[in-house]
Amino acid sequence: MADYIEPLQRLADMFRRLDGIGAKTALRLAFCVINFSEEEARAFSDAILAAKTEITRCKKCQNIATGELCSICASGDRDESVICVVEDPRAVIAIEKMHGYRGLYHVLHGVLSPMRHVGPDQLTIRELTDRIEAGGVGEVILATNSTVEGDTTAMYLARLLAPYGVKISRIANGVPVGGDLEYADEITLKRAMEGRYDIG
Amino acid sequence: MADYIEPLQRLADMFRRLDGIGAKTALRLAFCVINFSEEEARAFSDAILAAKTEITRCKKCQNIATGELCSICASGDRDESVICVVEDPRAVIAIEKMHGYRGLYHVLHGVLSPMRHVGPDQLTIRELTDRIEAGGVGEVILATNSTVEGDTTAMYLARLLAPYGVKISRIANGVPVGGDLEYADEITLKRAMEGRYDIG
Repeated sequence: MADYIEPLQRLADMFRRLDGIGAKTALRLAFCVINFSEEEARAFSDAILAAKTEITRCKKCQNIATGELCSICASGDRDESVICVVEDPRAVIAIEKMHGYRGLYHVLHGVLSPMRHVGPDQLTIRELTDRIEAGGVGEVILATNSTVEGDTTAMYLARLLAPYGVKISRIANGVPVGGDLEYADEITLKRAMEGRYDIG
Repeated sequence: MADYIEPLQRLADMFRRLDGIGAKTALRLAFCVINFSEEEARAFSDAILAAKTEITRCKKCQNIATGELCSICASGDRDESVICVVEDPRAVIAIEKMHGYRGLYHVLHGVLSPMRHVGPDQLTIRELTDRIEAGGVGEVILATNSTVEGDTTAMYLARLLAPYGVKISRIANGVPVGGDLEYADEITLKRAMEGRYDIG
């Protein structure tokens, strides 16, 4: 066999386009599909199309949604004066799982990255300033990831939003709860020390 | 957000059915698909259906194929007197990559496993004996995996095929080439010792 048969190779190539899936895993997954029942394969195929066609962006916060508004913006029992700005819908899910945040979100769908040609126009920053200009916003929490790009994006937004006179905050860095100091990296430890607070 | 939105959850559920994909990875992959272009999503969806509908089993060796015969059985320049019996098409690919085997294959599509209710009738054993009965076969190499089930299947086949008077062999166990003895498990080492050969 010179190579894998075409339909198998084609499917493996599609799996490879998914983040974190290498050539070997892609082939393994393609074999799994071959062993699916015809019904399962059809359901999988349909689910992919449905995810692409049925999922839209919330008109307000840009989170993924199935209607005009996402379930958070549509719920009506959230504190509309607080906006938590995140990189992607996964961050929304993570914060929601904490069950402690009652404000709204704003999903940027990326971070500023000159390397990857992502500037402010590629993110939903215009939509964020529109929301703030519309009034009623008291605080913007910048919850982009604690990476160089996430920090840069937060800094950029902090400067951009300063003229609006709303409170702007950044989520804290520190040692993860349950984490052992021994395993924390130096920058995290440094931030944890800088962010220390009185308890006595 | 009480849960993930339905189309996302549905797609993640399909990814979870693939071997080795857990809930977190499934969700991550589903998010990748959302970020696909519409064209890519359609290609992925089509590839899944095509893998299911276009891939058939080779009439001769039961390997995956796109026509009546797989490319190996159809090639005409293989030694048709040797049949290497393997568990699945992936094993065929692995052996072909070695570029040293010139015989044909027979793909069982599984191994005997009373635990999972897989008996001889669920495998392509009938097709194998048919091939041997048709004549022209001089050797059957049992290359099922070196697992309890693979070994059991090999033993079963060795006994079943004995009356046909063909040579029956089993691939060798031993220390992997390039492998450090320190990391070899005891059973592998024991087999490597038992299988030692004269070099002096």
